[in-house]
Amino acid sequence: MPSYRIDLAYDGTGFHGYARNDGVRTIQEELERALATVLGTDVPTVVAGRTDAGVHAWGQVVSLEVAEGLDIERVSRSLAAMLGPEIVVRSVAPASDGFDARFGAVSRTYRYFVDDRPAPNPLHRHIAWHVDAPLDSTAMEEAAAAFVGEHDFASFCRTADGRTTIRRVLSAAWWREADGLVPRAELVAASANHPTANYADVDGGLVVFEITANAFCHQMVRSLVALSVEIGRGRLRVGAIPGIFEARDRNAARGAAPPHGLILWKVEY
Amino acid sequence: MPSYRIDLAYDGTGFHGYARNDGVRTIQEELERALATVLGTDVPTVVAGRTDAGVHAWGQVVSLEVAEGLDIERVSRSLAAMLGPEIVVRSVAPASDGFDARFGAVSRTYRYFVDDRPAPNPLHRHIAWHVDAPLDSTAMEEAAAAFVGEHDFASFCRTADGRTTIRRVLSAAWWREADGLVPRAELVAASANHPTANYADVDGGLVVFEITANAFCHQMVRSLVALSVEIGRGRLRVGAIPGIFEARDRNAARGAAPPHGLILWKVEY
Repeated sequence: MPSYRIDLAYDGTGFHGYARNDGVRTIQEELERALATVLGTDVPTVVAGRTDAGVHAWGQVVSLEVAEGLDIERVSRSLAAMLGPEIVVRSVAPASDGFDARFGAVSRTYRYFVDDRPAPNPLHRHIAWHVDAPLDSTAMEEAAAAFVGEHDFASFCRTADGRTTIRRVLSAAWWREADGLVPRAELVAASANHPTANYADVDGGLVVFEITANAFCHQMVRSLVALSVEIGRGRLRVGAIPGIFEARDRNAARGAAPPHGLILWKVEY
Repeated sequence: MPSYRIDLAYDGTGFHGYARNDGVRTIQEELERALATVLGTDVPTVVAGRTDAGVHAWGQVVSLEVAEGLDIERVSRSLAAMLGPEIVVRSVAPASDGFDARFGAVSRTYRYFVDDRPAPNPLHRHIAWHVDAPLDSTAMEEAAAAFVGEHDFASFCRTADGRTTIRRVLSAAWWREADGLVPRAELVAASANHPTANYADVDGGLVVFEITANAFCHQMVRSLVALSVEIGRGRLRVGAIPGIFEARDRNAARGAAPPHGLILWKVEY
């Protein structure tokens, strides 16, 4: 049976996550309903990353097998007309036989946006976590380096169900960047004028995390973000990280950052 | 009486515009209610730009006079706690005696964001108008040049009420830029793979308009944007612009672009 790959972006704000869940609005339900209308039959789909409620995606990937080859242009247009503006089909393309978006993935990349200005950009409130304290992004960058490699992430997994919590993190980094709406000079001026915080070292509006791993356990990215922010606030030292890994206990970590700052960025096959 | 200046950013999505209007939610009402609570008395405010329903602001300015000098740090903290996340007070600062945010302004600057990708970024759907056709941003840049200078903007004003419609545009430009969330290489790849449009000349995700004038009549920016987009779509030539100005007739223009792409960017004094 011909296999296809759908690349998907979505604003997760109004959804109870990707995966179907009776009685609540989900991405999967809306996508499969649109596909059933376009294809004239129910078609099961497989997704690369089952994002939680409120989590967004830029580079989500879905695979499906159909009985007959598709008219890709017609399917693309119909899906665009039925979905959106919250769910956007970036492309529909033929895939190799048996392509499986979940088990075929060799790595997933997530990004997380933090806005640590005293006056955060209200136009990014759906996609950035506002932390009301200036963060030491250099210390956070050091923390990110400690996440790289093969580790047991039990302290950072919400549920393990007896399965392995060992994951291989290929890269992890924190950096500052302008928020894309506001010129850098404006940011610095706004921060310098604010009487309630010392933002002298702030050269960008957002603090951004990017992490790539072979796979992630539940709430792993948000737990690593929460830990990093505690370090950025000066409440925890980078040197404490190895002990938190060794504890293999979720209570040793620092909870989970809110979902709305998280974006599934890219999946590699 | 001591004068103060408040710099304000807001997401206009959930508001019926800036100005007070009985029975509907407005920025002015929420700001003045918060001020009354903090100051213990009603204080009238003056605003630089009375934005329409759905229009956003990054650099809105409000002035007020109070009977006694304010504890700026306390007022800033209290306003931040009561307003937000949709309304963000960027700063509260002393102003020169008699400072008037409206009549003291020498220029206002607006930005307008258009997303012309076949698959627009769903995370920017609140702040960018999705135009489902590749735009010729070079032709739009030529159109912008034709807006600069002192002109009668009657064809681009929703209501004139017999008052002058002559305005002085100090600068106007269209350009392409990455959308701040998506790396440039991703944008080009996504566009190239899309079967329904030729985006070979697209090197950025958003098409951005910036215009500065001494003042604007009602819906002037959105009318100039709508005209520019018609030119970018190839439905109108740049050479038609002088005739549209000369008509002094709103029906000669091309309507108004939707409010959600518009941001009051900056006010100069």
